Amino acid sequence: MTPVNPVDDTTVDIAALLERGRTLSTPVLRAAVDRLAPPMDTVAAYHFGWIDAQGRPADGDGGKAVRPALALLSAEAAGASPETGVPGAVAVELVHNFSLLHDDLMDGDEQRRHRDTVWKVHGPAQAILVGDALFALANEVLLELGTVEAGRAARRLTTASRKLIDGQAQDISFEHRERVTVEECLEMEGNKTGALLACAVSIGAVLGGADDRTADTLEAYGHHLGLAFQAVDDLLGIWGDPDATGKQTWSDLRQRKKSLPVVAALAAGGTASERLGELLSADAKSNDFDSFSEEEFATRAALIEEAGGREWTAREARRQHAVAIEALDGVDMPPQVRAQLTALADFVVVRKR
Amino acid sequence: MTPVNPVDDTTVDIAALLERGRTLSTPVLRAAVDRLAPPMDTVAAYHFGWIDAQGRPADGDGGKAVRPALALLSAEAAGASPETGVPGAVAVELVHNFSLLHDDLMDGDEQRRHRDTVWKVHGPAQAILVGDALFALANEVLLELGTVEAGRAARRLTTASRKLIDGQAQDISFEHRERVTVEECLEMEGNKTGALLACAVSIGAVLGGADDRTADTLEAYGHHLGLAFQAVDDLLGIWGDPDATGKQTWSDLRQRKKSLPVVAALAAGGTASERLGELLSADAKSNDFDSFSEEEFATRAALIEEAGGREWTAREARRQHAVAIEALDGVDMPPQVRAQLTALADFVVVRKR
Repeated sequence: MTPVNPVDDTTVDIAALLERGRTLSTPVLRAAVDRLAPPMDTVAAYHFGWIDAQGRPADGDGGKAVRPALALLSAEAAGASPETGVPGAVAVELVHNFSLLHDDLMDGDEQRRHRDTVWKVHGPAQAILVGDALFALANEVLLELGTVEAGRAARRLTTASRKLIDGQAQDISFEHRERVTVEECLEMEGNKTGALLACAVSIGAVLGGADDRTADTLEAYGHHLGLAFQAVDDLLGIWGDPDATGKQTWSDLRQRKKSLPVVAALAAGGTASERLGELLSADAKSNDFDSFSEEEFATRAALIEEAGGREWTAREARRQHAVAIEALDGVDMPPQVRAQLTALADFVVVRKR
Repeated sequence: MTPVNPVDDTTVDIAALLERGRTLSTPVLRAAVDRLAPPMDTVAAYHFGWIDAQGRPADGDGGKAVRPALALLSAEAAGASPETGVPGAVAVELVHNFSLLHDDLMDGDEQRRHRDTVWKVHGPAQAILVGDALFALANEVLLELGTVEAGRAARRLTTASRKLIDGQAQDISFEHRERVTVEECLEMEGNKTGALLACAVSIGAVLGGADDRTADTLEAYGHHLGLAFQAVDDLLGIWGDPDATGKQTWSDLRQRKKSLPVVAALAAGGTASERLGELLSADAKSNDFDSFSEEEFATRAALIEEAGGREWTAREARRQHAVAIEALDGVDMPPQVRAQLTALADFVVVRKR
């Protein structure tokens, strides 16, 4: 996709920003996970990439860690120390990973972060159970702070979690429907991705004593950032490099996902759009969809592109990115923090994984 | 089993007490469930027995509703109105039902409250998703009260939920082990059943402003009540009347559950105990366990009884019941409330379902 226009944030070191989030939050996250009763602690450690399937220490890919970085910046946006945001960063990561564990099982995904998913290695029951445990732990990590701010943070996290679950419910229901509108798809993605990213951007500030208006404005940035993030994810889900994403080729097409490029292409009209619609309708009824060749998926991807679904989605990512950055004007924060939040937004739309 | 000795609570109308809990909490519970995005609202309504599998209004069996009754009495124990306990009652019911949805799926249980379980009717993904949603809703119902007391209540509920999940993890791991000690089994049951019942008995008081010492003492009553409750459940799981319990005959034996009567019988020593141990070891390796006849389960049940597992468990239920009632002495509460808590404890150990 067309790279976004860099703003005045050329000096921000994104790798260092993500690394700071990881460095400050991972020890607290590991300590929380260590509280789980066996064998859930081991299963969770495998999921996070801290050990391999045989239980040996590993230095696996724990994900991009965008959310922890955002939670620490969130605290700084409210004038608090980055450390103030750590319990929020950990709680959001726990909710994010709870949803990954359950979603991978529900969606039948066999690979995540270049490794077999938990249900594949440890079985469905452990995937359910450990997901539940991480979800409970998220609230525990916040509520045991025992402060009024922690109660407010937990409330926001709970609301975000509910939206996340609503989004997954919508996503699953879309797979069984022939047609989904672009609006429905955006609503689903706002729930499934926007809500928790929004929470990551407000939770540190709330823990740092920010008022509801400030928190809401930060959430607006996070919500649009989430929509930009998901639009890019939808592009990577079809055209991403499997070596970079850790997923199969044509991953979202294999799962019949009604992602943005697909719904936009179907809504576009014209020859390619109609041909795509016919193919996908036939696919939904096909008994040998699972044995489709690479070429068959490539044909569908080419039709999506020809109908304009790829370009529409790339434009949508840029549009949401711009709205997110604009929202930052509503909060009075240190210029350095604003530059870092802007740079993170830029990173989200240009990433390859 | 031998009926417990009625205390000075002969005048307490248990049916009315349970009915009050249902009447006050069900409208709030239904309003909370109505917030779920479709189709989760429908799936949840089916689970609670408010509609049938075809979506028609139903007046299904929503369970015994011991927990809501306890939560309202809990508020009264702290000198507050029963209504003060309602959000706590609803939150505890939501957590309880979240765990039922996930446990039924993990355990492969096909029947619950005389009806097909959610995963059987709506599929595994809906069982996972709606369970998650109810769990999130539980915290939301409390935290949206926005009070310090609600934050404390949510913290206790979160701790109880974590123990509940620990207990389910232990329960599952026991099914794959040849031997489980009586102590391990009691620890598992304390987590799986005791923790949430304990929370039901403290949450209303916490919402009513009780201090931590009062809440902890009420939890001690609830914890032991939970162990008594589970011991009775373990008896019903083998010798219960399917018409009353809504479960299959020999339900726990069919699932190879290492429940109290089984572990106590295996620990007892003697001819019947050894013969039982040999049979269960062979069962664990058997390929045609699923096609066992009624007689084969009856043989195992008879050996458990002969080895003393049934009598030991009945005695354990009475012992925990006595400890629970004793714990009530630690809290200064209206005599009527004490009589009702005592009567509920009596009910729990003499019930047939």
